[in-house]
Amino acid sequence: MFVNNQWYVAGWDHEIDRSPLARVICGEPIVLYRKFDRTVVALHDACPHRLLPLSMGIKEGDNIRCRYHGLLVNSEGQAVEMPIRGERVHKSICTKVYPTVERHRFVWIWIGDAEKADAGQIPDFWPCSHPEWTFDGGYYHIHCDYRLVIDNLMDLTHETYVHQGSIGQHEILDAPIETHAEGNHVTVTRWMPGIDAPPFWRNALKKDGPVDRWQICHFLAPSSVIIDVGVAPVGAGATVEKHDQGARGFVIDAMTPESATTSHYFWGMARNFDIHDAGFTARFKKQQGGVFMEDVAVLEAQQRSISANPDLKLKAFSIDTGGVRARQVISRLIDAQGAKQLSDG
Amino acid sequence: MFVNNQWYVAGWDHEIDRSPLARVICGEPIVLYRKFDRTVVALHDACPHRLLPLSMGIKEGDNIRCRYHGLLVNSEGQAVEMPIRGERVHKSICTKVYPTVERHRFVWIWIGDAEKADAGQIPDFWPCSHPEWTFDGGYYHIHCDYRLVIDNLMDLTHETYVHQGSIGQHEILDAPIETHAEGNHVTVTRWMPGIDAPPFWRNALKKDGPVDRWQICHFLAPSSVIIDVGVAPVGAGATVEKHDQGARGFVIDAMTPESATTSHYFWGMARNFDIHDAGFTARFKKQQGGVFMEDVAVLEAQQRSISANPDLKLKAFSIDTGGVRARQVISRLIDAQGAKQLSDG
Amino acid sequence: MFVNNQWYVAGWDHEIDRSPLARVICGEPIVLYRKFDRTVVALHDACPHRLLPLSMGIKEGDNIRCRYHGLLVNSEGQAVEMPIRGERVHKSICTKVYPTVERHRFVWIWIGDAEKADAGQIPDFWPCSHPEWTFDGGYYHIHCDYRLVIDNLMDLTHETYVHQGSIGQHEILDAPIETHAEGNHVTVTRWMPGIDAPPFWRNALKKDGPVDRWQICHFLAPSSVIIDVGVAPVGAGATVEKHDQGARGFVIDAMTPESATTSHYFWGMARNFDIHDAGFTARFKKQQGGVFMEDVAVLEAQQRSISANPDLKLKAFSIDTGGVRARQVISRLIDAQGAKQLSDG
Repeated sequence: MFVNNQWYVAGWDHEIDRSPLARVICGEPIVLYRKFDRTVVALHDACPHRLLPLSMGIKEGDNIRCRYHGLLVNSEGQAVEMPIRGERVHKSICTKVYPTVERHRFVWIWIGDAEKADAGQIPDFWPCSHPEWTFDGGYYHIHCDYRLVIDNLMDLTHETYVHQGSIGQHEILDAPIETHAEGNHVTVTRWMPGIDAPPFWRNALKKDGPVDRWQICHFLAPSSVIIDVGVAPVGAGATVEKHDQGARGFVIDAMTPESATTSHYFWGMARNFDIHDAGFTARFKKQQGGVFMEDVAVLEAQQRSISANPDLKLKAFSIDTGGVRARQVISRLIDAQGAKQLSDG
Repeated sequence: MFVNNQWYVAGWDHEIDRSPLARVICGEPIVLYRKFDRTVVALHDACPHRLLPLSMGIKEGDNIRCRYHGLLVNSEGQAVEMPIRGERVHKSICTKVYPTVERHRFVWIWIGDAEKADAGQIPDFWPCSHPEWTFDGGYYHIHCDYRLVIDNLMDLTHETYVHQGSIGQHEILDAPIETHAEGNHVTVTRWMPGIDAPPFWRNALKKDGPVDRWQICHFLAPSSVIIDVGVAPVGAGATVEKHDQGARGFVIDAMTPESATTSHYFWGMARNFDIHDAGFTARFKKQQGGVFMEDVAVLEAQQRSISANPDLKLKAFSIDTGGVRARQVISRLIDAQGAKQLSDG
Repeated sequence: MFVNNQWYVAGWDHEIDRSPLARVICGEPIVLYRKFDRTVVALHDACPHRLLPLSMGIKEGDNIRCRYHGLLVNSEGQAVEMPIRGERVHKSICTKVYPTVERHRFVWIWIGDAEKADAGQIPDFWPCSHPEWTFDGGYYHIHCDYRLVIDNLMDLTHETYVHQGSIGQHEILDAPIETHAEGNHVTVTRWMPGIDAPPFWRNALKKDGPVDRWQICHFLAPSSVIIDVGVAPVGAGATVEKHDQGARGFVIDAMTPESATTSHYFWGMARNFDIHDAGFTARFKKQQGGVFMEDVAVLEAQQRSISANPDLKLKAFSIDTGGVRARQVISRLIDAQGAKQLSDG
């Protein structure tokens, strides 16, 4: 159900601090906190003694002391002290530790075999931390399978109906799309050359006249979608491959599975225009949060219907090609880990 | 658990209109709405594309457009348009359609093989729509097996205890009953000749003097009970077979299964006296609603106890004969459909 | 999971009176009430007719009349009257009756074969009813396995962390403990000779100077823990075996299983000092209730974590020896009843 040996977003950089944060990721209860050196610790959220969540514990330096009997666990997950005279503890008494990396404004956690963790595999969210860009966003807990959110984001035609009261546009339905899959990366490209820029983009570009506009959805395994959107003046040389000539943004979406039917949804917008306009950032975050809440309502209703109709299958039209390809990548990765377990076992 | 190939009440006539109404019937999620010609459409409540409930959709004429990606589904349940340039849809992409008939103030739905639907089998609730009668009532969602409501209604002795604060009467316990079963119809008859009319019925009859009084419970498969109640002056010639000489009413009860332990309870009262007295109608509906709420409290407690005691069996006394016979009809119909499935399979 | 053929606390003496009280014990729904002679009746809480809880019924003398159809059930659980003319009932129509004994301020119920009930096996809570002692306490419904509460009470080192805001004391961690098991009785003894009495005990003793102090936890199968606590002046001759020379109390804890993950927790304090000081009694009960609520919060979190981590095992340090031994007693009793069922079957 979940893809193993992968990096998932565990939280926003600002969500995790010295105090413990409890979060269930891919079915595993995890406690997250920062050490004094600001690096992030992620431990299985159960004291190795009597399983009380460590997230209820008391921080002592970089260690955490269980709130029940006081077992002190270090940031490697090892028991280091039991506060009873003469009681010895062995480091073999321990809780699982998860590799973490802080990158591109998020804390990423490795779910799988710790020794295979390779920070090079973290999805490239470069616009979130590039000095000439700015980035902000939010978090929703959502009651649906994370793959339903991926389906949703890999097909923007849903905007017409789900977001008819906010950002829905009938024109989008007319623009042709190209879907391309290569390895674990799927793209859905909508290139709209020589059109009138809608007000939002005209303001961003600060220039009148016809533009080339694009929407390019990137699925990055196991569960991120980033959408490259923007406009460039006609004749500026923007191409599908390279288009930094105008105003550009990335809609950022990282869906971390919590359970089979619940997910953590981290979302935001990175942009390369008006990057010092904090008012714009705040207004846009509020608007984007409202739009994504419309998706949440639909996705949760879809999940309830899927659960209530176990015999019905989802059908796919051409608009679903991007989502279908993304699910194929996920299925292939899950199948591969099943085959691996069989050959190991 | 549920009887197949039967008509069930899906809703009051006034509950269903142009806007979609979602209701789960015999475990199946269904959306109900009226076309411009006022006929009622009932579809499986899941878009054939990605299963979003169609009841969340947008009505377009007599069709319904899914709120997610805009697939347009007609009143036959068939996909007729996908709002993407060049996208073709086939009518083979469809959701299940259920036969419906509006009759006797209710909308009836056929659960089973659509081709077997025969409106002639709809239970005869004639007093609900007869021009010389008037009818009103209400709806309760109730957390119990529909068969517990049938048991309740086929034995009126429970009035003494369940309704001791409202309509309970000790005299009823002394009146003998006759139970009769024929085909799928069970009757429990209580005929009380030459008694003093209680105040309610004296007011209805508008005449003093001794009366013959009756209470005749009719179970009509699969899940309706109508109770013929009234009085006629002694000597007017009222008999068990024919008794239109006085004041008469029908307590109407249609229990539509939602799940194994929840039901839709449609209830009301039809009467042939004071039929233009709207104040009487309103007061009586309020009183009846209160009395039935007393039943709901008991039935839901009974269901919880049955669920908590899976090893205990219900026992039957003579007062339960009507309910026992009604359950025999239900069991026979369920067994027959099981045998049918086996011989078909 | 539960030990059979045992006495459990069903309720405080003052909780049970003429009106029926419903309580689930070891998974069995039970109704409790007192007869005119003040003895306690315990019946399976389901009318033998249609299973409506008898606890919803109407008391008639020492009998209980079902609120649905009026079946009258006597205090032996037997049907004695059905209020329909000519209806005969047989005493073979009955609900299960449970032996009960009122002792030491509690009502005890026997779960198992009624003929094996022997009041001599009731745990000896003598301080709760001794004329030179006084006793009061409370009740909590708690969402955890009763054995987690036993673990908690058989190890008082948890006070340091769970109760750090109330009664936690670091000194306790330094006192050595002795664990002893004999038959179904486990004791954990902490004897602290020649120490300064803490304020609470100095006030209780009404004397200055060094004291011998003790904390002796007794586990009494199947699910009680009583903790003998107190101080005596040095030189007064107090020993582990006999120590009535000073101020003494018993913390009383009876955990009655409701389900696999919920329990009834009856708690209190008996003492032999200031026994006529009702203000002290009331203040102490309030304080003790607050302290135990801190345990409840931890125990319920521990239960959730255990349920969420079925593959993780609880580990034991030396402080857990008392709880481990108590669980060994419980396991041995459960295994014995399993073996008994096998040889009987």
